[in-house]
Amino acid sequence: MTAFTEHTSAHRPATGYPTPAWRKAYRQGSTPDLRVPYREVHLTDGRTVPLYDTSGPYTDPEHTADVRRGLPALRDPWIRRRGDVEEYEGREARPEDDGIRHTAPRGGDLRNLDAVFPGRPRRPLRARDGVSVTQLAYAKQGLITPEMEFVALREGLEPEFVRERVASGRAVIPVNVNHPEVEPAIIGTDFLVKINANIGNSAVTSSIEEEVEKMTWATRWGADTVMDLSTGRNIHTTREWILRNSPVPIGTVPLYQALEKVDGRAEELSWEVYRDTVVEQCEQGVDYMTVHAGVLLRYVPMTARRKTGIVSRGGSIMAAWCLAHHRENFLYTHFEELCDLLRAYDVTFSLGDGLRPGSIADANDEAQFAELTTLGELGRIARAKDVQVMIEGPGHVPMHKIRENMDLQKEICDEAPFYTLGPLTTDVAPGYDHITSGIGAAMIAWWGTAMLCYVTPKEHLGLPDRDDVKTGVITYKIAAHAADLAKGHPGAQVWDDALSDARFEFRWEDQFDLALDPETARAFHDQTLPAEPAKTAHFCSMCGPKFCSMKISKSINEKFGNGAASPEYDEAAVEGMKTMSEEFKAQGNRVYLPMAD
Amino acid sequence: MTAFTEHTSAHRPATGYPTPAWRKAYRQGSTPDLRVPYREVHLTDGRTVPLYDTSGPYTDPEHTADVRRGLPALRDPWIRRRGDVEEYEGREARPEDDGIRHTAPRGGDLRNLDAVFPGRPRRPLRARDGVSVTQLAYAKQGLITPEMEFVALREGLEPEFVRERVASGRAVIPVNVNHPEVEPAIIGTDFLVKINANIGNSAVTSSIEEEVEKMTWATRWGADTVMDLSTGRNIHTTREWILRNSPVPIGTVPLYQALEKVDGRAEELSWEVYRDTVVEQCEQGVDYMTVHAGVLLRYVPMTARRKTGIVSRGGSIMAAWCLAHHRENFLYTHFEELCDLLRAYDVTFSLGDGLRPGSIADANDEAQFAELTTLGELGRIARAKDVQVMIEGPGHVPMHKIRENMDLQKEICDEAPFYTLGPLTTDVAPGYDHITSGIGAAMIAWWGTAMLCYVTPKEHLGLPDRDDVKTGVITYKIAAHAADLAKGHPGAQVWDDALSDARFEFRWEDQFDLALDPETARAFHDQTLPAEPAKTAHFCSMCGPKFCSMKISKSINEKFGNGAASPEYDEAAVEGMKTMSEEFKAQGNRVYLPMAD
Repeated sequence: MTAFTEHTSAHRPATGYPTPAWRKAYRQGSTPDLRVPYREVHLTDGRTVPLYDTSGPYTDPEHTADVRRGLPALRDPWIRRRGDVEEYEGREARPEDDGIRHTAPRGGDLRNLDAVFPGRPRRPLRARDGVSVTQLAYAKQGLITPEMEFVALREGLEPEFVRERVASGRAVIPVNVNHPEVEPAIIGTDFLVKINANIGNSAVTSSIEEEVEKMTWATRWGADTVMDLSTGRNIHTTREWILRNSPVPIGTVPLYQALEKVDGRAEELSWEVYRDTVVEQCEQGVDYMTVHAGVLLRYVPMTARRKTGIVSRGGSIMAAWCLAHHRENFLYTHFEELCDLLRAYDVTFSLGDGLRPGSIADANDEAQFAELTTLGELGRIARAKDVQVMIEGPGHVPMHKIRENMDLQKEICDEAPFYTLGPLTTDVAPGYDHITSGIGAAMIAWWGTAMLCYVTPKEHLGLPDRDDVKTGVITYKIAAHAADLAKGHPGAQVWDDALSDARFEFRWEDQFDLALDPETARAFHDQTLPAEPAKTAHFCSMCGPKFCSMKISKSINEKFGNGAASPEYDEAAVEGMKTMSEEFKAQGNRVYLPMAD
Repeated sequence: MTAFTEHTSAHRPATGYPTPAWRKAYRQGSTPDLRVPYREVHLTDGRTVPLYDTSGPYTDPEHTADVRRGLPALRDPWIRRRGDVEEYEGREARPEDDGIRHTAPRGGDLRNLDAVFPGRPRRPLRARDGVSVTQLAYAKQGLITPEMEFVALREGLEPEFVRERVASGRAVIPVNVNHPEVEPAIIGTDFLVKINANIGNSAVTSSIEEEVEKMTWATRWGADTVMDLSTGRNIHTTREWILRNSPVPIGTVPLYQALEKVDGRAEELSWEVYRDTVVEQCEQGVDYMTVHAGVLLRYVPMTARRKTGIVSRGGSIMAAWCLAHHRENFLYTHFEELCDLLRAYDVTFSLGDGLRPGSIADANDEAQFAELTTLGELGRIARAKDVQVMIEGPGHVPMHKIRENMDLQKEICDEAPFYTLGPLTTDVAPGYDHITSGIGAAMIAWWGTAMLCYVTPKEHLGLPDRDDVKTGVITYKIAAHAADLAKGHPGAQVWDDALSDARFEFRWEDQFDLALDPETARAFHDQTLPAEPAKTAHFCSMCGPKFCSMKISKSINEKFGNGAASPEYDEAAVEGMKTMSEEFKAQGNRVYLPMAD
């Protein structure tokens, strides 16, 4: 327990917004326990701009953060009302879950890991009698769940539209029945582009406390989901603390922990060890899991002539296993059993691209697309078993080869949500791979990718620290929002318009407060013009007071009359949603499509 | 002179490369005075990778930098050998050239500005008897100049290909006869994508010394051209010091200085004041000038209903002038006279997009495209008078509207080189506009833009400092190189391949040295694994020693045999060039085309 004493002193969750102009607000749903949070930006002229918010209760002044108690179990009544789950005696946590099979335990009685997280007395839930308790199953049955209503209100869409997209497999809502703290989010090409932030300790560096802090830090800046990729010590305990404190869906790669359980020897892996790990993580509440079931034995030799071989950790582990045993990937051979397991908790598959290219030279090659074909096949099996599915994508791809990835994925994988890492558009800029990949991410999201896995400046070089996490998240929010604009998401441009109005009218404070990162915008301005009066000045440091193009434009507007009335941004956002809803009805359940090309 | 005493103590030009593995090398041309510099990256395995180099003599250990003497006049013999220029008594520098008409002079005798730069005794050159001394004129006559041979060697192309592209107006080589220090570079869609860095003091902040330092700093990291956009004091003197010390083409917006001469009152501008300023700058050696001749009186009202009006400084100044006098833009009415002036020095036009959009809402509107039509018309006039021409482009454009800009520009402007600012793909991220614009820049460059004007993190907020300049340059080198890859530039991927090989083989030092920014790559790695042995370790901090995907891939390679022989990068680069040359011949003077879509 010592670690968490340190935690409360040295590492705290990120609470409060970066500017007082951001305030928590809620949209009320159809039941009292359904309130959808959003962020309201209060402008100096009295207007407000409503923005999507991922920061959870930490930014609600009425919430007192206590990481030892965890977040309120928002979804608990929704889950129990459905009457299709049961509490049971879960799998007992074991020392090896925290990677300490062969070494002396440190820091307390590690045979009773539950004690490490005092705030969770509850027993795990699972589906009663093998029924399907997934959002996909409900959607297929025509049910609109509270989770669907929640995301509909959150995105400004009709609940029926959400249900239809989930039912068809073109969108997922990753919500494990054991993660009741999560504020549901929807991932699909017809919705706002989402971003994921990876965190996680490794054998080399970082601690549990830091990871919990990073999670709240990432969601404060806009991460829609967080993947815990821990590979070192305390994997189980780190994950427990992250889940109990996370307002966003949490993803993992169970293979990493399974490998720790066999002491890092890939050839010692087995379906049994893997299955045990999946159960452990399902019971904790992991919302989606990366599963490298598409790395087939016959694909492995295709990578031998690559410039950078297999760069996915999961992919290389499974390749090593296949070669060591000369047998087919056990994730592939046990895939249906895995589906049954995930269905019992509503865990979403993220079918991993273990053979993704790790360099420009290897992009779009035989191995990559062979695996994609298998992922399409597995996706159909999973959906038939009512399990939600995303498909993971590359990687390193030059710009002219990105489109092919998206088009093939749509075709092969039946428009299941694509979840891509970047892609990085060149290999020559280590230290700046948030940018090399932000370029590719914006493009592939415009063309249809539903969620972007962020890349930080430390990619290829080291583990991201707090600043790197923020830089990665902001860069990917830019890529995602640029794609929302390009796809013509009706609510998206309201934000840009509000900021452009503030810029044109020299409302400096509003410019800062409407920025993705108000702290940085304000600090940069103050470096050149630090005095307080400069924030109301009708000029900026670029041109100086004599020379201002905005001033000249204003006189033109006065001369010719700018007839555009100042919009109310709230109304404009609502109007966007209304338009969308009407179009939805008019077009027979197709509201808005990506308008790429 | 006091300022420059300070200069030599506080602000020095950036000399030397950021890593000892980068070494200056030269390719010898057909005459002894034609040596083309490049950067050789020396790898730990003894191989070398040749890279394009913009850093000038400052990175040659045999050159002793002395900013008071300026750089060697590399092109002087080439210019004089042609026998078509004459020395003459130039325009006398006047106090108002430094913006001190109405205020007391400071820092020495400002009536004799030449004395401020001790290293330049020479008189200006201009064309003899009104002949055309432009690269365009020579190319039309079928001459391959040393400048053309220089850029051909620099890009790995046939000189004849260069000549043909310049003759057709599809590429420019901006080289004023009064800037003999410049190492020629070519700007056109069929060549490596170039980037420009803006520097310049303003009335609010920064000094001459800082600007000279920023120029060498920008070119050290890869800026292909630099624009001096100074608007405050000491404009003339700052420019003189920049030109005498710049190995890259220098661009300006003469209108800014002209406006200073009339004390910031746009309505007091006249063709005479402007003409005088252009002569002043032609004699100093400015290589290209942004001219806002397309802002026509009838276009100005089109901007009245925009969200952000006119955001180009030059555009708004000319709009204000047109409205004040209710007369046509004097740059348009005197355009042919301006052509004659620029031709006498071989100054390249950069036809400014004064009506570019300043927000997502205003992208691709009537005003913007009306001006583009006029720029096309002016470009034809200029080329008919043997003056080289680039066309400037936007601005703020969402991704789905970028392609239209490029396609229209090609069609309307006869494939003259497009030179774009960004474009920024969203307005919501002040503080990160290097990224919002880097996305748009990479895309538009892939589709054909020849030169990208960088945007720094301080855009919209303040003036860039040294770090911002570096971040802007590196971001735009990424965008440019990503576009070179996507266009299929034959030499481009050699660099990525070399870095990917180093990554796969855990040659950490080579990874750092092949990075666009070795300092940052090395520093980031050292933050996680600072010990020296870690630089030779066969693992990295992402996975830790147990868990390395690269190690597993290597065992796969050993098992199945990776038949790809390690290439010699020098040979690969040369091979790329050869292929390009052969294709050039085979395809009838069309070597490689942008392979967009």
